[in-house]
Amino acid sequence: MNAPSPRPNERLVHLALGDRAYDILIGPGLIARAGGEFISRLKGRRAAIITDENVGARYLSPLMDSLQTDGVEAVSLTLPVGEKTKSFDNLAAVTDMVLSARIERNDAVIALGGGVIGDLAGFAAGIVRRGVRFVQIPTSLLAQVDSSVGGKTGINTRHGKNLLGVFHQPDLVLADTAVLDSLSPREFRAGYAEIVKYGLIDKPYFFHWLERHWKQVFEGGPERIEAIAVSCQAKADVVVEDERETGRRALLNLGHTFGHALEAATAYDSSRLVHGEGVAIGMVLAHRFSARLNLASPDDAARVAAHLSEVGLPTEMWDIPGELPPTEILMEAIAQDKKVKGGKLTFILTRGIGQSFVADEVPASEVMAFLEGMRNQ
Amino acid sequence: MNAPSPRPNERLVHLALGDRAYDILIGPGLIARAGGEFISRLKGRRAAIITDENVGARYLSPLMDSLQTDGVEAVSLTLPVGEKTKSFDNLAAVTDMVLSARIERNDAVIALGGGVIGDLAGFAAGIVRRGVRFVQIPTSLLAQVDSSVGGKTGINTRHGKNLLGVFHQPDLVLADTAVLDSLSPREFRAGYAEIVKYGLIDKPYFFHWLERHWKQVFEGGPERIEAIAVSCQAKADVVVEDERETGRRALLNLGHTFGHALEAATAYDSSRLVHGEGVAIGMVLAHRFSARLNLASPDDAARVAAHLSEVGLPTEMWDIPGELPPTEILMEAIAQDKKVKGGKLTFILTRGIGQSFVADEVPASEVMAFLEGMRNQ
Ligand SMILES: NC(=O)c1ccc[n+]([C@@H]2O[C@H](COP(=O)([O-])OP(=O)(O)OC[C@H]3O[C@@H](n4cnc5c(N)ncnc54)[C@H](O)[C@@H]3O)[C@@H](O)[C@H]2O)c1
Ligand SMILES: NC(=O)c1ccc[n+]([C@@H]2O[C@H](COP(=O)([O-])OP(=O)(O)OC[C@H]3O[C@@H](n4cnc5c(N)ncnc54)[C@H](O)[C@@H]3O)[C@@H](O)[C@H]2O)c1
Ligand SMILES: [Zn+2]
Ligand SMILES: [Zn+2]
Repeated sequence: MNAPSPRPNERLVHLALGDRAYDILIGPGLIARAGGEFISRLKGRRAAIITDENVGARYLSPLMDSLQTDGVEAVSLTLPVGEKTKSFDNLAAVTDMVLSARIERNDAVIALGGGVIGDLAGFAAGIVRRGVRFVQIPTSLLAQVDSSVGGKTGINTRHGKNLLGVFHQPDLVLADTAVLDSLSPREFRAGYAEIVKYGLIDKPYFFHWLERHWKQVFEGGPERIEAIAVSCQAKADVVVEDERETGRRALLNLGHTFGHALEAATAYDSSRLVHGEGVAIGMVLAHRFSARLNLASPDDAARVAAHLSEVGLPTEMWDIPGELPPTEILMEAIAQDKKVKGGKLTFILTRGIGQSFVADEVPASEVMAFLEGMRNQ
Repeated sequence: MNAPSPRPNERLVHLALGDRAYDILIGPGLIARAGGEFISRLKGRRAAIITDENVGARYLSPLMDSLQTDGVEAVSLTLPVGEKTKSFDNLAAVTDMVLSARIERNDAVIALGGGVIGDLAGFAAGIVRRGVRFVQIPTSLLAQVDSSVGGKTGINTRHGKNLLGVFHQPDLVLADTAVLDSLSPREFRAGYAEIVKYGLIDKPYFFHWLERHWKQVFEGGPERIEAIAVSCQAKADVVVEDERETGRRALLNLGHTFGHALEAATAYDSSRLVHGEGVAIGMVLAHRFSARLNLASPDDAARVAAHLSEVGLPTEMWDIPGELPPTEILMEAIAQDKKVKGGKLTFILTRGIGQSFVADEVPASEVMAFLEGMRNQ
């Protein structure tokens, strides 16, 4: 009945993590056949779906229908939209719902939504009975190319973002590329910044390809699937090498040290800046800072900025609406970022497009002087 | 300054879990030198201590003094005594306190107490920043020989016991055998039941040794240290072979299927039955049930019962004060126990003392008839 996956217009990325190995399927229409993939890959026949109001309104009933058709008993919980949903209270609500649904070790929690739902539902799946199966159905571009792959889960606390969580790999990821059509253009662009990131880390040819094909990626069609597949494969490669981020996985933070500081400086107010936009500005800054340290050519920074701004992403601090706090406050946010060890700053720098590396011991004074200069241009 | 550990009157058990390997030190006076062990084995210099009111009143300040002397900055949180402390609310309180104390990945959460504190604090350590270091200082006999070893952590929910948690191995276990002197005789006996369990699983010689030396184990001295070390080693061996309980680790549940059913039947009222007492009765029942199935001699069951009752543990269902519910209700509790797969009962049975094995597909009707017979003798 079910054609073997992946089908001709789909892509499959395999995460070779030993007994935690799993597949990522990428293509249009995957929600409609989630039930078939579920029963052919998982032992259990029950599922607890977690979603948010935006996504649930559109895609929950097609998903429930598909699961039901294939004999998977599913219940669902729809949570409010937004970053605030990643809270301890909602972790309690989700775990309680999952236990009420009698989800056993071989049954699954299904995350249907963006990174917020994925992080929260994945955390719950990781702690119910010390770990039940977990299926990611990422619906935002950011979730499809980044947060649904790699097993990081978490919630926010009053002390900061993502401070509580577990590593819990999914057992299956279904990235339905058709659902991205209902994503707002701004959220699509934000996810696209992370796609560009993979090119800038170590795939110069991919960055060049994006420069030529980004319009098709935005419009949908085979290029979109291709870009998502390359991104998932890139993240998969890093995760397989360094599952728990003790080394190489840090490269995925290219643009994120500056980006996180800008998010903090705008008090995580998404009307001013969303994560991917901070990353876009951060990647430009990382290239300029590398040029300032005579590691890379300033032309590379200009080329990165040109591409990001062509697709409509911000690339300069002054692109952010409203006032930014003084540079000292930005520096404090940078120093509080996780990538600081023993007082010294760890940064992802670059020798050129697709030649990023982890730099320990970057002097804070250099960063400060650079940021000061950037603002006053 | 610090003599190398273990010192002459101490024992060391090593858990060879690859990059999660750790040592268990067993001996009198280890709390007084916790600071030295901490700094020689962990990179961080901060600690958040979690304890309960009973244990904190006695051992918190010696522990704080020792850490301070060796330059470890420590803060503490003292929680109420008892099983109810393993709650979601306390998980929130502990994680908040640990984050306030700015515990980073290389710093540690320290559990100072019995299994309740160990399970709760270990869970918190497993989720703060997706895992910070964890030091167990078990103070009950049960915690020293069982719960502090192996990395299972958890809390209770309205749906049942230990339904939320993670696997998070400690980085160091300090079992100070001197603190057991302040444990109530009843709690000591309950922990002793778990020691006997290791003999009954696969160490007949250890069971024989306990029959001869149990008085010295209760009184303290080298036999106590020896019994705890053998128990830790036994649990360590099983954990190393099967860290996530997919197979052999199930043997550790000898006596626990019946035991858990009796705990549920007495509504976890510790004035009627504590866990170790349930396990004592459960082990006798497991041996008798094995005899009924013609797997073992009834003499073995009698010998097990004789030893457990000699030390003052209950061995019969009628030893439990108050009425027990009808056998049907006991059977329901058995069927709800985690060791049930696809409707069939999984039991730990035995061919004799020290010859336990995992039996799948035990017919529920046999168990029911056996239990009915036991009550009406
Ligand atoms: N776990 C990881 O490795 C990782 C990596 C990166 C980011 N993250 C986390 O991911 C989160 C951000 O993810 P996000 O950007 O997906 O945020 P999100 O989940 O809030 O989704 C963004 C918005 O898009 C909406 N949406 C999602 N899919 C849609 C669709 N198909 N149609 C219409 N609307 C849709 C959502 O309702 C929401 O309003 C952050 O919490 C971040 O910490 C996690
Ligand atoms: N994680 C595991 O692998 C595992 C294994 C077995 C049991 N457990 C859990 O362990 C818990 C039971 O552990 P427990 O029996 O230690 O219970 P507990 O922590 O409640 O301790 C029992 C009592 O002894 C007191 N106490 C502890 N040490 C003392 C000392 N030195 N002097 C005076 N009083 C002292 C405590 O305050 C408490 O009143 C249960 O929650 C059970 O689920 C976990
Ligand atoms: Zn990102
Ligand atoms: Zn036990």
